[in-house]
Amino acid sequence: MRLAELSERSGVSTATIKYYLREGLLPPGRQVNTTTAEYDEEHLRRLRLVRAMIQVGRVPVAKVREVLGHVDDDSLGRSIRLGAALWALPQVPEPDDDDEYVRAAHQEVDKLLDELGWENAKQLTTVSPAYRSLVVAVAAFRRLGYEWGAELLAPYAELMYRTAVLDLDNMETYPSEPEQVEFAILGAILNEPVKQALHRMAQEEESIRRYGLE
Amino acid sequence: MRLAELSERSGVSTATIKYYLREGLLPPGRQVNTTTAEYDEEHLRRLRLVRAMIQVGRVPVAKVREVLGHVDDDSLGRSIRLGAALWALPQVPEPDDDDEYVRAAHQEVDKLLDELGWENAKQLTTVSPAYRSLVVAVAAFRRLGYEWGAELLAPYAELMYRTAVLDLDNMETYPSEPEQVEFAILGAILNEPVKQALHRMAQEEESIRRYGLE
Repeated sequence: MRLAELSERSGVSTATIKYYLREGLLPPGRQVNTTTAEYDEEHLRRLRLVRAMIQVGRVPVAKVREVLGHVDDDSLGRSIRLGAALWALPQVPEPDDDDEYVRAAHQEVDKLLDELGWENAKQLTTVSPAYRSLVVAVAAFRRLGYEWGAELLAPYAELMYRTAVLDLDNMETYPSEPEQVEFAILGAILNEPVKQALHRMAQEEESIRRYGLE
Repeated sequence: MRLAELSERSGVSTATIKYYLREGLLPPGRQVNTTTAEYDEEHLRRLRLVRAMIQVGRVPVAKVREVLGHVDDDSLGRSIRLGAALWALPQVPEPDDDDEYVRAAHQEVDKLLDELGWENAKQLTTVSPAYRSLVVAVAAFRRLGYEWGAELLAPYAELMYRTAVLDLDNMETYPSEPEQVEFAILGAILNEPVKQALHRMAQEEESIRRYGLE
């Protein structure tokens, strides 16, 4: 397809597509003559991913380029590609390990991983942003006087594990590995609001079931 | 306790506490003499809630006042107090009902509620911010060419329902209704990062279980 059709099918203006091409976020089309290039379905898919990261996820252009570099690096195994791409997305600040609440949170999260038998996640604690986010969040609760620890977290972790199984099952319905990795990135950006909204609606439903509307 | 002790136990500076008192976010202490006021455990609890909303949740002062007004309004039933307090927290933009993807998302979300039998949530669709958020998020997926609909959402909704049951079970371990409503607000602010981090770690765990680290 020509640039105009790519623009129409993606809903992204031709000016923006040209900008993405210049920034290397979209691979160049196949040059048909000096003024015309031809684009295919892979360009359309990539364009949608880039737009989701920039417009919905508010990921900076340099980060988008880094994420795409991991997506396209087929020298890596699938777990590493998934991890590298997701880890390049915006992150929480580093926990302050001198803080007593942070130290307590570290202990509780490590205990949680032991109790759950998440052996793989345990090997990643020094590098995983998710581990660091959890420590920061648990420390925030503890600083407010709430004793969030392994025992209270475990049932939530089990439900989130089942959610992750659903995520990967859905991802595997896509035929190729690049499509799967792209879907995982989109999921990380777009699924959070879906799950958060479903969670709030479930709270409303259950709250009214328990307490009525009186 | 005196102001100095309230400051020490909460970790909030006396200047900030005085600001919260002036803004009506914290009820005045019991005046012991012209220069000294006495504070109790309820002040401490309220102070922690206010700090969580402002520092962690980045809720504006006027919104905090509105949320607290709902928490303290014991003329309302528990579901309404919970709902009013949570709904006052920052929200997503309104969906654009003239957009074809938004209309399709409305249909899918309504179908989902029917299939789940969430009769109470269904009654709230015209007023619930969670319903609007879900419509916006599903429309964003569909605009990118992903056919997110009732069928794919249902298993996520079931897991989020079980998560909501855990939330309310935890909330009910607090003895009084004001404490329960306060815990629900804190949960809405602090639990999201916890669940999101657990979800990411679960994805890492399951990804390595399925695909290894090669």
